[in-house]
This record gives sequence, structure tokens and C-alpha cells, in this order.
Amino acid sequence: MTERDFQLYDTTLRDGTQQEGMALTVDDKLAVARHLDAAGVGFIEGGWPGAVPRDTEFFRRARRELSMENAELAAFGATRKPGTTVSVDPQVRALLTADTPVVTVVAKSHSGHVTSALRTNLAENLAMVSSTVRFLAHEGRRVFLDAEHYFDGYRLNRPYALEVVRAAADAGAETVVLCDTNGGCLPDEIGAVVADTIAATGARVGIHCHDDTGCAVANSMAAVDAGADHVQGTAHGYGERCGNANLFTLVGNLVLKRGRRVVTDEQLGRLGEVARAVTELTGVRPVPAAPYVGSSAFTHKAGLHASALRVDPDLYQHIDPAAVGNTMRTLVSDMGGRSSVELKARELGYRVEAGSPEVARAAARVKELESRGYSFETADASFALLLREELGGTPAAPFEVESWKVAVTRRSGDDVRTEASVRLRVDGVPLTATGHGNGPVNALDRALHEALDPFFPQLNRLELVDYRVRVLTGETGSGAAARVLISFHDGERGWGTVGVGENTVAATWRALLDAVHYVVADDALPRPLVPFAADTAAGTPARTG
Amino acid sequence: MTERDFQLYDTTLRDGTQQEGMALTVDDKLAVARHLDAAGVGFIEGGWPGAVPRDTEFFRRARRELSMENAELAAFGATRKPGTTVSVDPQVRALLTADTPVVTVVAKSHSGHVTSALRTNLAENLAMVSSTVRFLAHEGRRVFLDAEHYFDGYRLNRPYALEVVRAAADAGAETVVLCDTNGGCLPDEIGAVVADTIAATGARVGIHCHDDTGCAVANSMAAVDAGADHVQGTAHGYGERCGNANLFTLVGNLVLKRGRRVVTDEQLGRLGEVARAVTELTGVRPVPAAPYVGSSAFTHKAGLHASALRVDPDLYQHIDPAAVGNTMRTLVSDMGGRSSVELKARELGYRVEAGSPEVARAAARVKELESRGYSFETADASFALLLREELGGTPAAPFEVESWKVAVTRRSGDDVRTEASVRLRVDGVPLTATGHGNGPVNALDRALHEALDPFFPQLNRLELVDYRVRVLTGETGSGAAARVLISFHDGERGWGTVGVGENTVAATWRALLDAVHYVVADDALPRPLVPFAADTAAGTPARTG
Repeated sequence: MTERDFQLYDTTLRDGTQQEGMALTVDDKLAVARHLDAAGVGFIEGGWPGAVPRDTEFFRRARRELSMENAELAAFGATRKPGTTVSVDPQVRALLTADTPVVTVVAKSHSGHVTSALRTNLAENLAMVSSTVRFLAHEGRRVFLDAEHYFDGYRLNRPYALEVVRAAADAGAETVVLCDTNGGCLPDEIGAVVADTIAATGARVGIHCHDDTGCAVANSMAAVDAGADHVQGTAHGYGERCGNANLFTLVGNLVLKRGRRVVTDEQLGRLGEVARAVTELTGVRPVPAAPYVGSSAFTHKAGLHASALRVDPDLYQHIDPAAVGNTMRTLVSDMGGRSSVELKARELGYRVEAGSPEVARAAARVKELESRGYSFETADASFALLLREELGGTPAAPFEVESWKVAVTRRSGDDVRTEASVRLRVDGVPLTATGHGNGPVNALDRALHEALDPFFPQLNRLELVDYRVRVLTGETGSGAAARVLISFHDGERGWGTVGVGENTVAATWRALLDAVHYVVADDALPRPLVPFAADTAAGTPARTG
Repeated sequence: MTERDFQLYDTTLRDGTQQEGMALTVDDKLAVARHLDAAGVGFIEGGWPGAVPRDTEFFRRARRELSMENAELAAFGATRKPGTTVSVDPQVRALLTADTPVVTVVAKSHSGHVTSALRTNLAENLAMVSSTVRFLAHEGRRVFLDAEHYFDGYRLNRPYALEVVRAAADAGAETVVLCDTNGGCLPDEIGAVVADTIAATGARVGIHCHDDTGCAVANSMAAVDAGADHVQGTAHGYGERCGNANLFTLVGNLVLKRGRRVVTDEQLGRLGEVARAVTELTGVRPVPAAPYVGSSAFTHKAGLHASALRVDPDLYQHIDPAAVGNTMRTLVSDMGGRSSVELKARELGYRVEAGSPEVARAAARVKELESRGYSFETADASFALLLREELGGTPAAPFEVESWKVAVTRRSGDDVRTEASVRLRVDGVPLTATGHGNGPVNALDRALHEALDPFFPQLNRLELVDYRVRVLTGETGSGAAARVLISFHDGERGWGTVGVGENTVAATWRALLDAVHYVVADDALPRPLVPFAADTAAGTPARTG
């Protein structure tokens, strides 16, 4: 059971869409709402009907298409305009037409903004709050009031800010949400103002924070500690400027750090999945380091940590990643040494023994290769190949490379052509293939597919998704070594390979070949990989060129 | 003047490199240190000598190559091993060999970790702290002690955690840094524990936080409020799992929110520039929403905000972006584009007028090109060429390109050859040249030099120093556009160019050509560039293909 009275309020679909680069369709918005509902959010603000046409459409379709288990839908809008009658204000009417159980109304609570931005007087602003809330409550809506710029307003003119809260509460607002609209506050101020506001007005108070000091989550927690029991946030902290309070982080903190049952354990366990699904829908690049749900949130690299993690994973993790639907990962690097090689090997499904000579050899090779510019951190497939070799399990090479060639020709204007040709031997039989592409990587990739796909149909699914080149020393320029990192995908999962060489094209070729070897050598792609050591005659090395 | 006693301590080069996907070369590390120094950081932790070969090398080279204005260099390492003599512990010796004024030693302060991870007894751990600190202090080092897992340890066994702080302080540690190693704390706990620790031990206390609850910055601020006057963080919050406390955010908050003069106004004004430079070096994708320094940190999209912003920008901004070297952008107008073009033009020595049609045209072109993947932030030479064109100052093209071709051939083993050939016209006379190199960039670069150096001797000094390729969308793989950034140097100063294209080699070619045009067109290289408009007949456009 959750705390029935705690209001977990999501504004991804309204305030979150102010994020630079975010443009959700109505279908996207409906899908995001469903995911947030599954995570146990209590209220979902769908947008501003009447002001944003897409939002009007969202509420129209939501009535028919959106059925939610936990969440109630809220429509967002402003109080009536100065000097008008609320019942005929077209924008207030649009809030009713949206036909949601909840309506959230934004109002000025900063006396300076009332005069400079709203261009009305302080008394009229109070009347706008009062009449709008009363009208909407009378129409059967649960009304929340967002008090804009509340903390800055309180600092400038505490009595007026409190007056706005009282006016809203007296008119029937269920909760008055105090907004740090400009995001400039720190937790101590937020906590003190929330406590004072509750004491002075007796109103039920909520909190809405922005992250301009990097404290949106801490500010929201401070408000809850001070008595707020309504928290607003957005998925991934999406929002204008530095974003809003990250609702995923808030849920993790409220449940796991404060013992507040704002969602069930089951809903909490879905947090990672919901976060990934929302990312897919918004297309906004996820932050790997995001607390609780980020892909790096429980990822370990340091050798110091890796050796301790072997003893007990809790030594370097503040919670069990499974509680929030995430998993622990280990990165292999020259900082890690044996322990991280061992952990990574286990993660890949190899049963290796602590302190075994194979692990020692693999760790030494990683260290040596990284000193020459390799980086295995994102190149898990290249690491798996290296490990397999050390475990004595490299099978006979399924094909051999004789030669390859790439030609890039520019004749006139933007007419640039790239052709790659490869000469291979498959089962001893020579074979030539060519590939055309928009660059050496692409052309070589296509030539390899052209040559090998008929023999190894599993390569069909192998798709190159990312490619990065980095020159390794800043001193000798293009005369230096280059590191190429390539990411691949097979439609279900992704992996990476690495190649290093003086020649960028040669480095690229090595990374491409690793990807092909990795796929060709594995019959079944899903993890865990079957360790070759277990397949071949006990530990007999079968290494070939 | 800054607060002389406040210790602003950066650990980007040690703890920050635990970040997934970060692999800095020694050159990168030296460059990052220089940038952080310019931002006014007081201490820069360079790495773990003796444990990570690259870090050993970093300290060796830093002695000769790194001269810093504000920062002192710190070497990081562990206390001596249990049951050994500190003076012969190889790892402690490596700390001395690093030859830094400051040494930071990490020690266990969690009684559970002493027995489970370190596998020694509580008394021996205290002896390890005491003897290691005493030995290093006796060798003339300023010693900081990082008390690992301090807050978790304090919760479990307060007397022992305090004992570790006392042992370090008594042995001569200048500051004892309390670490929330697992990042699981919230600000109230951090503040209370820091205050109690200072009261109970009288030690000078620092803070080191991780962001696993999204509160690393707020936690660090709470520690400072409670009396800590040493704060550790990393550029962009780089670090393992969810990262460390973001030093850029901390600096902004400490100066602008707490009035702590931890850096000068001038250093604070460089924050944005330093943040961008570090991003380029690490290659880690920046977070646009990052407080203070993010590209979206002062970007406004909402209609509500945009109209209020016309009244007064402060209505929706918590600080003046210029204070931290950032700028306001409004996504609904082109004003942001114009002003940044204007600023950059002035930086390059062009006297352009606010709101002139030339600036408007240049801003529109920058916007259009950036939407296609160009990035002019580090490509100042490419931007200067574009600006010159709009100022009507492009001289007759000194040469024309007819065609070029690159061939990369691998015959056997590691024998990979690259040959580039170019066909140009100089003063109308056709000319062919070839170049051999270790990759397409290098070969094209040499072919260009081969063809043009005899005619334009100033090209002799032009040397390619860095080369980066980035695929622009992660979805279509090598079929997507690529952005190539190239850095050049002439022995005195450096500049960058950019090229974008579907074909990586074609994009490279564009960036190479920009560099050549930039040098050929300018007789005198040192800034400020002489605006062409002032050289030619007043404003007469002399543009040619």
C-alpha cells in the first residue's frame, strides 16, 4: 500500500516539454502518460488546453484512449485575465472542456511580477486567484494552485505571498504548490519558507522546483521534510533551462531514503523500465549518470572498488539496483586490474576463478593494450574476444583476411564516392567483395557483409550504430595513433568494439573485424555468452591466428 | 580577492576519470589541468601514481610541462598496507616520487569496511592512517586525508569514525575530507554529521560527495554551511556511477548564492569557456541542462516566459548568465544567434555594429549550418572565414580544387598504405600532387602541403595537431552525417576548423581546406585578424567561388 494522501504529481507533458529539443506528438504524450501511470504517479498534468493546440487535442483523445490505473489527469492553465469575468474567460472555459478530474491553475505570488509582468494591482491578482479557484471548484474540479515565483516573492514581500496562498486555500484549492520558478534557491531556504507558509496559512502545501542550482531534488526533499505532501517533478528532470526536479530521483529518495510509501515496491521496481521507455518516446539523449535509473548509476570502474565489490556489492552501492529496476555493471580498464576483469567476465557469463592465471593474463593484456591506446570500457565485444583467447577457447578462425582496399574519390563539387574491396578466405576458398558507402567505415562494413553474410547468416542482423575516432596524442597530429570505437546492434541488444592503429582506416578495420568475429563465433547472441572453455576439451588451447 | 583559506579541490583527473567512457591521455590530462587552473581551482588531484601507469607518467611530465597560476597539484594514494612499514611501502614511495606539494591519502573510516574489505583490525587501520600521514608530512608534503565511507561509517560506529579523523589530524593532516563514497546521503544528514565531527574533533574538515541521490551539490553546500571549508568536486560532475559533486555548479552556488569568494569574478566569468574546453578534451557528451554552464542553462522556450523576458530578463533567470560566462537564448527569436555572432566577431578583432545586416546574415548562416551538424565553438577559423564572406571581404580565391582521391590499401599483416592525390589550379595553372600518410587525413594534408607550400610559404608552419570525428546521429550509424573537427598550430598559436558531410573523408577535406584558406588569406597570423572590410575598397564585396 502507498500513502494515500501523498500527492506525486508529474508535469512531464506540460513543463517537461519546455525542454530544448523536445517535441512530442499527441501519440507520444499518451504513451508517456501510460508509462508514468505504471510507475505509480498519482497525477499527470497533460498540458495547457486552449493555449497549445496539441494539448487541447491530447485531452480530447485522452478521454477515449487513456485509461489509467493509478493516475488522475490534470489540465493546466492560468487564472482569469485581469478585469474580466471568470466564467466567460475563454482560457478558463478551455480548462473545463478538457474534462479532467483535476485542474491546476498558475497564479502570480510575487508582488513585483504582478505589477511588472501582469500589469495589474495586487488586490486584483488576489481576486483573480480567488474567483478562478472558486469557479473551477464549483464546477466539480479538484483544484491545485501553482504559486509562481513563490520563493522569490516571499523574500521580497512575505505578507503578499502568504495572502495569495490564503486566497487560494480559502477559495477551495486542495493544494497550493509553491514554485521555485527560476530555480535559484537552496534547500535551507526552501525548507524554512515551506514550514513558515504552512504555519502561517494552515494550507496544504506542495512543491515545484527547477534545477538551476543543481538542487531541485534536494529542494523538493527539504520541502517534504518541512511538511509539503505534494511533489511535482518530470521524467528525467526534463524542463526549461536546467530542467525540473527529476521525478525518478525523487521517487527513489522518498521511498528508499525517507521510507515514504509514495509508490509500491512493485512500481518502484519498474522505475528503470519506465525511464527507458520514456527516453525512447522523447528521443532526448539520456544522462547515463542519472541517479537510480541511469545506465551508469550502478557501474563500477575503479580497481579499489572492484576488489571490494568482489567481497560485497553493497560496499560501493547505496541501494540494491534491483529495487529500482536497474543492474550493476563493471567496466574493464587499466584502472581496474584483475578484479574488474573477473567481475566483467562473470557478467559476460564466464565462470572464472579468482586469481586464476587466465584472469591474470587477461588483466595484463588489458593493461598493456590500454597503454597503447585501446579502451575496453565500451568495447565489451573486443574484451570478450580477448578473454576467450586467454581462456583457451578461441575456435579455428572461420575466415581469413588476405587484403583490403578503400578508395575515396572526389571528382567535382560534392560528388564524393567511396569504394572498398576485401579479399578473404572462407574455409580456405578465396573470395572477393566490394562495398560502396558514404565513407571508409561504411564501405568496408558493406564489403564485409557482402562477402560474409551468405556464409554466416547471423551477420545479417549486425548493424553499425555509432562510430567515433579519437587521435591519441595531441602532439604529433595525424601522425599519431587513432582509436576507433564502434557500436553495433542486432535489433535486440548492442555491444561495442575497439581498434587502434596509426592508420585510422586500419584501426576502423580492426574494430569492424572484432564485431564480425564476435557474432560469427557466438551461435546464440543473448547473454550470457557460453564460455568456450566449457565447450572444448577441458582447457586445451585451440588458438589460431 | 578570493577567500585564501577556502580549499576548492578538483579531482576530475582522478575520481572523474572513473566516469564511464572517459579515457584521457596524459596530454588531455595536462590540458584539463590548465583549464581548471584558469577557472581558479585551488588544488588539482592529478591521479594515482604507482597504481595507474598513465598517472605516474602524468606527474613526471607535469613537473616539466605544467605551470599553474592558482592551483597546486595533488597526488592521490592509499595508506600503507596493513602490517607493513610505511617508509618502504612501494605505493607510498610512489606518492613521494610524484613530487607534488600536496598528497591526498585515502583511508577507511567505516569499521565494517576495515574488517571486511581491508581484512585488518580497527587498531591497525588507525596506525596505518597515523603512520602514513606522519611520514608524508615529515617528507614535507601538505597532507589531506580522504575518509572513505565516512557518513555510512559514522552511522554504524560514530566513535570509530571520529577516531579516524582524530588520528589523521593528530598525525598532521591539514584537512580531513569526509567522503560520502556511495553517494546515498541527503543534505540534512551531511550537515549534522559534519557539524558534530568538527565539534567532536576540532579538525579542519572537507567534503567529497557523490550524486547517487541527485544531491551531491546540495550535500556539499550543507557541509560548507556546517563548517567544512574544503570542497571536492569534478568538472561536469564526472565520476563513477552517478558522478561526483559538479564543481562548476558548486563554484556558481558558493559565489553567487552564499557570497563565498572561492574564485574571483574574472575566474567565475570564465566558467562557461572552461566547461566547454573540458568537454572537448574528454569527449564526454555534455549535459545541455547543466546548471550555470550548460548550453540550455539560460535558454527559454515557453511563450509565457518569452513575453515576460521582453519586459525584464531577470523575471525568469536566477542570475545574470554573463557572470558565469554563459548567455541567454530564446528559442523563439534569433536574438541569441546575433549577439553571439557579434561577440565572437569582436573577439576575432572585427568591429561590427549591433544589428547590422552582415551580423544578421552571419547569424542566420551559423544557425543553418549548426542545424546541419556544424559546430563553430572550437572551429574559430571556419567561423572567421564565414564572417569574412558576410563582411564582403573574401579575396579572390588563391587556388581552386579540381578533384582529389584517397586510397587505403592493406596487403598483409599490418602493412597498410594510404595515398592521396589532389588536382588543383593555382593562378589558373593546373597542378597535381600526391601525399602518403598513415590515414586519409594525414595523406590529404601532405598532398595539400606538397601542392601549395611552394606558392604559399606561410603554410609551412601549419601543422595538424588534433583530429576528431563524431557521427551526428546515433540511429543510422555510418550512414549518418559526420562532423570532423581539426586543430592546427603554427608553433605560436592554435585554431580549429570544422567540416560536415555524409562522407567522413569529404568532411575531413572541408576542414583541411578551411585551415589552408584561413592561413593563405591572412598574411599576419596573430590575433586580432585584420578585417578584410577595412582592407578593400570600403565594403565592396569581392566574393568569389
